[in-house]
Amino acid sequence: MQGVLYNMPTKDIYIYIISDSAGETASKLAQASVSQYDELNITFVRKTFVSEKKDLLESLESAKEHNAIIIHTLISKEFIQLANDYCKEHNLFSMDLLSPIVNELATRSEIEPNRIAGAVHSLNQEYFSRITAMEFAVKYDDGKDPKGFLDADIVLLGVSRTSKTPLSLFLANKNLKVANLPLIPQATLPKELWEVDPDKIVGLTNNPEVLNKIRQERMRAYGLDPDTAYSNIDKIQEELQYANDLYEKLHCVVINVADLSIEETASIILEALCLEEHSFLG
Amino acid sequence: MQGVLYNMPTKDIYIYIISDSAGETASKLAQASVSQYDELNITFVRKTFVSEKKDLLESLESAKEHNAIIIHTLISKEFIQLANDYCKEHNLFSMDLLSPIVNELATRSEIEPNRIAGAVHSLNQEYFSRITAMEFAVKYDDGKDPKGFLDADIVLLGVSRTSKTPLSLFLANKNLKVANLPLIPQATLPKELWEVDPDKIVGLTNNPEVLNKIRQERMRAYGLDPDTAYSNIDKIQEELQYANDLYEKLHCVVINVADLSIEETASIILEALCLEEHSFLG
Repeated sequence: MQGVLYNMPTKDIYIYIISDSAGETASKLAQASVSQYDELNITFVRKTFVSEKKDLLESLESAKEHNAIIIHTLISKEFIQLANDYCKEHNLFSMDLLSPIVNELATRSEIEPNRIAGAVHSLNQEYFSRITAMEFAVKYDDGKDPKGFLDADIVLLGVSRTSKTPLSLFLANKNLKVANLPLIPQATLPKELWEVDPDKIVGLTNNPEVLNKIRQERMRAYGLDPDTAYSNIDKIQEELQYANDLYEKLHCVVINVADLSIEETASIILEALCLEEHSFLG
Repeated sequence: MQGVLYNMPTKDIYIYIISDSAGETASKLAQASVSQYDELNITFVRKTFVSEKKDLLESLESAKEHNAIIIHTLISKEFIQLANDYCKEHNLFSMDLLSPIVNELATRSEIEPNRIAGAVHSLNQEYFSRITAMEFAVKYDDGKDPKGFLDADIVLLGVSRTSKTPLSLFLANKNLKVANLPLIPQATLPKELWEVDPDKIVGLTNNPEVLNKIRQERMRAYGLDPDTAYSNIDKIQEELQYANDLYEKLHCVVINVADLSIEETASIILEALCLEEHSFLG
């Protein structure tokens, strides 16, 4: 054994995701947990779409070699038993992510789970309507075709850099058809806007200083002078005033995205528009 | 108490998501667990962005009223203790989703977690590059501008209805810049395609029968005759042949999406293009 090192770097920690499906739930948990640390050396290994017993065993053996933290989402009783027994026998840290809730639901409902791997991703109606919603968001992004406003579940309005596109896509992933329109004081508003139910419209706004900073960054990224009209603070204030006046006329919900992530803004929109049941999709 | 009913409907089960952040991880787990049952009456309640002790207590009390299954993602030690104690005291079923992995990481690394709520969604560089990737996907969807091919991390090719758009957006959410191009035998291929590193290109294909069915559905959805040239099986086979010939010329990865969900196809793409570290994002 070597002597103790000063400034010893963090030990490498392995996290294994083992799943009979795409492993998205376990990955999300791993990501949320790791984000609580600023400087860990983590090696992530994904063993996904495990459908054969020998693949499961190989994955577990590989995890054992690295003394990995194991997060598994398996649905076959036999696989769960095998994984849990293996980890216990070899003293491996593991988290069986699905069993607690799946078993509790079985106890309460007295219904047996179907135990079909990746049932969450099955090609059902919900899945196809999500794809439709994504295509809708792309088609009606950036005011490309105002006809989309009338078919949309949500119409997002906002000046440049108020997260309209990423918000539209995030909400599309929750099976909502979203159209968005950039607000530009000089441009004519499409007449369809006045035909939309105001309860479907969300007006996005931001703080002038934040927009100023973001837009300067954007100009720099394009290799241009950061101080153009686009990033001028008076100009920005004028734009925001124009947007706010419009929101008042439309009587729509207004959200300031300055301190919000996409997830947070989306969550507020779903609540404000009474679409909270969509939170669980995607 | 009323008499026993025949054909008694399933009891309503409440699932409460309690989180100091957007509750996306817990929602994903709830969704995956519930998808294991075909016919449960579940009422989902989300108590998110809980930042005050009194809000946490109110959420727990509300969950107790419905004897709810509780899944919580809390990071403050005080909140975790409060939630766990409350659930124990009132005999409520609860799952503390974050603690097992967060605590195990602390033990192994000897580093304390920062315990900042919603750290996963913080407005860091990764977050901004995800937004950039989403905007990229929308901008370079459907072959709109072949210049995007040269800046893309992944270029997806495929005939109509091979999931190019939803795949591009799904991968964008994992911080990858994706451009896609629909393949149409009569159309001229953009010259940029031949300048792209073949290791970045993915050729999507599908089974003719599947495409036939999907396209007929699409025509029906448009209120048109389902049996047009678009859905004609010989025509489809011709298109697929054209696509496969091109993939051979390009020496690119080819994936048949016929039996795959978006998540599964994305997972295969990340592995094939050695981009697996992106699996953990989004």
